[in-house]
Amino acid sequence: MNKSLLLFICLLSNLTIFAQKKRARDYGIEIGVLRTGKLNAITDVAGVKVGQVTFHQADGVHTGVTAILPHDKNIFQNKIPASIHIGNGFGKLAGYSQVEELGNIETPIVLTNTLSVPTASAAIIDYTFQSPENKDVRSVNPIVGETNDGGLNDIRRRFITKEHVLEALKKAQTGPVEEGNVGAGAGTVCFGFKGGIGTSSRILPKSKGGYTVGVLVQSNFGGVLQVNGVPVGIELKKHKFSKIDEAYKDDGSCMIVVLTDAPLSAKNLKRLAARAMLGLGRTGGMAANGSGDYVIAASTAEDLRIAHNSESMYETFKVLRNNDLDLLFEAVIEATEEAIINSLFAAETLTGFENTKVEALPIDKTIEILKKYNRIK
Amino acid sequence: MNKSLLLFICLLSNLTIFAQKKRARDYGIEIGVLRTGKLNAITDVAGVKVGQVTFHQADGVHTGVTAILPHDKNIFQNKIPASIHIGNGFGKLAGYSQVEELGNIETPIVLTNTLSVPTASAAIIDYTFQSPENKDVRSVNPIVGETNDGGLNDIRRRFITKEHVLEALKKAQTGPVEEGNVGAGAGTVCFGFKGGIGTSSRILPKSKGGYTVGVLVQSNFGGVLQVNGVPVGIELKKHKFSKIDEAYKDDGSCMIVVLTDAPLSAKNLKRLAARAMLGLGRTGGMAANGSGDYVIAASTAEDLRIAHNSESMYETFKVLRNNDLDLLFEAVIEATEEAIINSLFAAETLTGFENTKVEALPIDKTIEILKKYNRIK
Amino acid sequence: MNKSLLLFICLLSNLTIFAQKKRARDYGIEIGVLRTGKLNAITDVAGVKVGQVTFHQADGVHTGVTAILPHDKNIFQNKIPASIHIGNGFGKLAGYSQVEELGNIETPIVLTNTLSVPTASAAIIDYTFQSPENKDVRSVNPIVGETNDGGLNDIRRRFITKEHVLEALKKAQTGPVEEGNVGAGAGTVCFGFKGGIGTSSRILPKSKGGYTVGVLVQSNFGGVLQVNGVPVGIELKKHKFSKIDEAYKDDGSCMIVVLTDAPLSAKNLKRLAARAMLGLGRTGGMAANGSGDYVIAASTAEDLRIAHNSESMYETFKVLRNNDLDLLFEAVIEATEEAIINSLFAAETLTGFENTKVEALPIDKTIEILKKYNRIK
Amino acid sequence: MNKSLLLFICLLSNLTIFAQKKRARDYGIEIGVLRTGKLNAITDVAGVKVGQVTFHQADGVHTGVTAILPHDKNIFQNKIPASIHIGNGFGKLAGYSQVEELGNIETPIVLTNTLSVPTASAAIIDYTFQSPENKDVRSVNPIVGETNDGGLNDIRRRFITKEHVLEALKKAQTGPVEEGNVGAGAGTVCFGFKGGIGTSSRILPKSKGGYTVGVLVQSNFGGVLQVNGVPVGIELKKHKFSKIDEAYKDDGSCMIVVLTDAPLSAKNLKRLAARAMLGLGRTGGMAANGSGDYVIAASTAEDLRIAHNSESMYETFKVLRNNDLDLLFEAVIEATEEAIINSLFAAETLTGFENTKVEALPIDKTIEILKKYNRIK
Repeated sequence: MNKSLLLFICLLSNLTIFAQKKRARDYGIEIGVLRTGKLNAITDVAGVKVGQVTFHQADGVHTGVTAILPHDKNIFQNKIPASIHIGNGFGKLAGYSQVEELGNIETPIVLTNTLSVPTASAAIIDYTFQSPENKDVRSVNPIVGETNDGGLNDIRRRFITKEHVLEALKKAQTGPVEEGNVGAGAGTVCFGFKGGIGTSSRILPKSKGGYTVGVLVQSNFGGVLQVNGVPVGIELKKHKFSKIDEAYKDDGSCMIVVLTDAPLSAKNLKRLAARAMLGLGRTGGMAANGSGDYVIAASTAEDLRIAHNSESMYETFKVLRNNDLDLLFEAVIEATEEAIINSLFAAETLTGFENTKVEALPIDKTIEILKKYNRIK
Repeated sequence: MNKSLLLFICLLSNLTIFAQKKRARDYGIEIGVLRTGKLNAITDVAGVKVGQVTFHQADGVHTGVTAILPHDKNIFQNKIPASIHIGNGFGKLAGYSQVEELGNIETPIVLTNTLSVPTASAAIIDYTFQSPENKDVRSVNPIVGETNDGGLNDIRRRFITKEHVLEALKKAQTGPVEEGNVGAGAGTVCFGFKGGIGTSSRILPKSKGGYTVGVLVQSNFGGVLQVNGVPVGIELKKHKFSKIDEAYKDDGSCMIVVLTDAPLSAKNLKRLAARAMLGLGRTGGMAANGSGDYVIAASTAEDLRIAHNSESMYETFKVLRNNDLDLLFEAVIEATEEAIINSLFAAETLTGFENTKVEALPIDKTIEILKKYNRIK
Repeated sequence: MNKSLLLFICLLSNLTIFAQKKRARDYGIEIGVLRTGKLNAITDVAGVKVGQVTFHQADGVHTGVTAILPHDKNIFQNKIPASIHIGNGFGKLAGYSQVEELGNIETPIVLTNTLSVPTASAAIIDYTFQSPENKDVRSVNPIVGETNDGGLNDIRRRFITKEHVLEALKKAQTGPVEEGNVGAGAGTVCFGFKGGIGTSSRILPKSKGGYTVGVLVQSNFGGVLQVNGVPVGIELKKHKFSKIDEAYKDDGSCMIVVLTDAPLSAKNLKRLAARAMLGLGRTGGMAANGSGDYVIAASTAEDLRIAHNSESMYETFKVLRNNDLDLLFEAVIEATEEAIINSLFAAETLTGFENTKVEALPIDKTIEILKKYNRIK
Repeated sequence: MNKSLLLFICLLSNLTIFAQKKRARDYGIEIGVLRTGKLNAITDVAGVKVGQVTFHQADGVHTGVTAILPHDKNIFQNKIPASIHIGNGFGKLAGYSQVEELGNIETPIVLTNTLSVPTASAAIIDYTFQSPENKDVRSVNPIVGETNDGGLNDIRRRFITKEHVLEALKKAQTGPVEEGNVGAGAGTVCFGFKGGIGTSSRILPKSKGGYTVGVLVQSNFGGVLQVNGVPVGIELKKHKFSKIDEAYKDDGSCMIVVLTDAPLSAKNLKRLAARAMLGLGRTGGMAANGSGDYVIAASTAEDLRIAHNSESMYETFKVLRNNDLDLLFEAVIEATEEAIINSLFAAETLTGFENTKVEALPIDKTIEILKKYNRIK
């Protein structure tokens, strides 16, 4: 099969095969106590755009790119406060140390597969250099997260090119976010089922600022699946501990991106990021040895933009006090849990590289189980 | 009321009021997929001893001390590999930096209330100096964890004395561990209900080494309670988000002690400790701003003892490989979740300082809810 | 000898024996390129007060307390941004995790000996509770640094009482700071010579804000002494590597306190703190295994005070940009180097516990060596 | 000018222009108290190989690659204990989080310029995949350090290709290491003078194990230069603080690689790495805001190799005790200081991109200054 044909198939599949399925909440699964945003997606945070390119090819390529733009302006010239929490550092995320040292990000966030991190990093440098405003820039800190889709994707082939990444960045738009076997989630596996991209959001009450917290995950990890507390993994006998004397392996990872319009210092974004792992825990995730679990949290609050160059020695921040973070913590936990569940509900059965087949979460059975446990009607 | 009388009441209460209640598992609540140890307690780890002193006085003192001895020998002369994970650092735990720098602990672990950390630290120095073997010791790193029982306990009075701490250390024994309103959990509050001390354990299959992981918690934190995934907090309308427009506060903390006979390096004990937070997450915990959530993990493996003095420049460690940690991770998550639930099941309604009353988790209603959700029969 | 007599001797010695000696700069030793403040002391930072109590007793007690108050107001109610850098964590500093989590300190900073940290912590709680404004406070995070003076001081006796600490806090005043064998430096040893308390400061040029950086050290560590780059330790054959085949030991520690009126976020105070270790390196310090090297950095800028309680959910900070920190970094490096050298110049020969004698740095010879190397005239 | 011609010039220059100059020690500059290895280079550590490719082109390309192989075997299959210390995280080093989580490296260490990190990372994946033994490998953690040579090099052009990196890896050999304007140091600037690659080593006395510590630096940072304690920067009026009221900027970074055959745990390699910053401090370095200062430390001890796959759940380590690290700490401090000074002594004046000219350290004047201060005869 030639390359163009493959690409055609890929684009086709991108458009047609993965028609939007019902999301967890559409089945009456209500995770947590806070209300969701309109789209129940990371794009509920005003100005946030997501762009994805997806490759599903007959020759074993099942991978892609998910790009997240926190705002509309030149991000390098208008950096935003950010922090990265490392749940488990067995991963290749690019950009960590500078974010931690300076407390900001200066590029979009791109997710892809493990071996394509260098390519995506190079592409983000290209992207930054494309802007005439950045013509004197000689240093860029690309933020690239990844999980390893090497079970379903011919990962050693390193299919992703800089152009693919630039395409994802270009395609980025506000509005609904496609979930499941798309973008960086094209070939991922979660709790033994097909994983992928998932998203969710929470809105704080007006008296607490009315802020939005949006989460997007690339789910690719193991454990014993719980759906809103219901032991679906045990019921479906789909977890690696089911015969615990057997050789056990739960590789994979979870990338979690948290954006909020709440005005938070980098220090408190670090704390916000850490809470996302509690949401992962509630799905039955365990942060296995082989799981690279990273949470990138950033604030899109306009007043907190950090000019790359400034006449002034000073910058002024109006941020939430330490004492007023708890609802945001709850929001990120709930949205992370729901984003992971959404990724499983959206993902579809895939036969990938070397004919490895990974089944989707059987939605009907899952709903039955949730009914058995009276979690939905 | 004079001091002796108070002490008498205290000792009496210690012995009689808090008769052992049924634990979560006695009601058919089976958390996780791994099996528990014989006692389902931290003392399932061979050689581990727990000692507690408890004060419930009519004048508003409701506090205590919980001491944990990892082994029978002189701990200073026979240090053990250890690490501390900080889930949320709003707390006063003593000993952190030396444990992180050197990778070991050289004293028992003592838990008490926030304002008694200095007293407990001083007592551990006394305890260490009492041993003739330690007569030349001029530096001791006491490990003291705490949560703030200031809601029910007249904490500003700082009732705990060095003698109380030494008494807890002396009383330490193997066997069942008292849970609930005892020791450092005498006056704690968890999910809006009376919290306290809880414990649980897990055993790995023989093919995986047959190791034991034991957890003991001092539960004193907030969130939206889930019992084995069932939304008990929501059903009981007992969570601070129930009217989320109201002023919200979820102070308190959680101290988690993890001991295991699995041979782990300090580096991997750090990773083990981090997983305990996922167990806390599964109970609905959120690591609120005001919550000092710390996990101390240590290995009791005899071969890993670190002699204070040694003729040799070298030490030899036979430890588990990174690749063989996942079952231990699962074990610590499950045991932490169950230890927290056990603390709630054991704790009893308490009217404390300034007539503040905190109800126990209503067990009957909780069981009903668990039945409603088909989690128990 | 009875206690009152000892105390009398102590107070006497405090007043008379350690008459202020010439400081390094008085000999023409000019460290660095930035200018010093008027006092060349931490108290050049406006509002900063230092109080010290010192015990030199015939029965082997040679220890003390150094208290540093960053401002005049109720510190608990008016917290200040702060961070702690751990150069080497083999120490018992109290307060680390909360400072790192919340980014502020809420008590004075107290330095003392290793085994008196619990006592000093308890005293700081007392101190905080003494203020009527703090009558509802139930949680305090005392900041206590220490080094081990167990070579010259009968440290196991734990002579320091809460009253001593409160006395140091009470005595705290602006103006010159006594150096050498005083306060927490009474019994410390540095580079094999008598160490102690030392202080220095630097002023930024007006165009850079004119800020002051003040440093105070408790010097008690090893290595190969350099005075302004001159190999004094080698010349005096006073270093542990001089016969490097011999059993080598370089215990002890260095506590470094950095205060500045520059408006810095907690995040950038962390970075400032880290630079102090470079100053320690320039004196020939090596951060030996047994050395607990901690740097506490805090900003006294009035606009950055953090109210314990606030009507508002928000706080506003006007702080220096990341790009404008370099002169502050240079300042802290230079002031740390000079503070350590000052501690050595001020300290006097002491015969302490069990007749251990530690010689002061021989100033005459040192000056000769500096002349030999043309570092002074 | 066409590409082949440029390449020819480059190779030629590589071979001829930078004839080995005298090193600092050849002038009688003896840094520290420990003795050096035979080559006074990182390659004194048995088995270590260094390979460099260098580009100096008329069109403004002045950059390169320095590759360091810790041992002769397949590194992925025979990982080695390692840790990374972040002195200042304003940089783009690849590989940090996995090294910190797992405590080992599984690839060679490659240094290059900031914007070529993605290319070098991709090349290391290629390199790993080239080995038939690694045919099933689907995850690689490339270790790539960098500094920004954008002052002298047309860095935005991103000249370095994967082939260049593979060439450096291929060329790697034992024996003397070229210093100065070579490899990743081709276009770097240090203390306002031409910087580059430098190396040094120290040998412990036999009674302490006779271990070797080797350091290699890519020097590209600022401050006020000291050569063995002598204020060369001040004497040459070549430091940015010389007119401290002027706009001040001290960008750049320092990459430091530390290898040793001493058997050290990852935990203690972290501590070893941290000490390298003290050596940087002794040269007058200040870790400016814009300086990405990273130290990678790894142990080449054969007994500590970590098999990628293993039949056993366990691994056994015989490592140095915490108490026996001090000479290694001293060694790394001294070797780092000397490696930086060596980089300055070897580097030559360069006119680079956009005709920017950076002078070499004037050796004659420097020697005069050292004589003036009696540091050499």
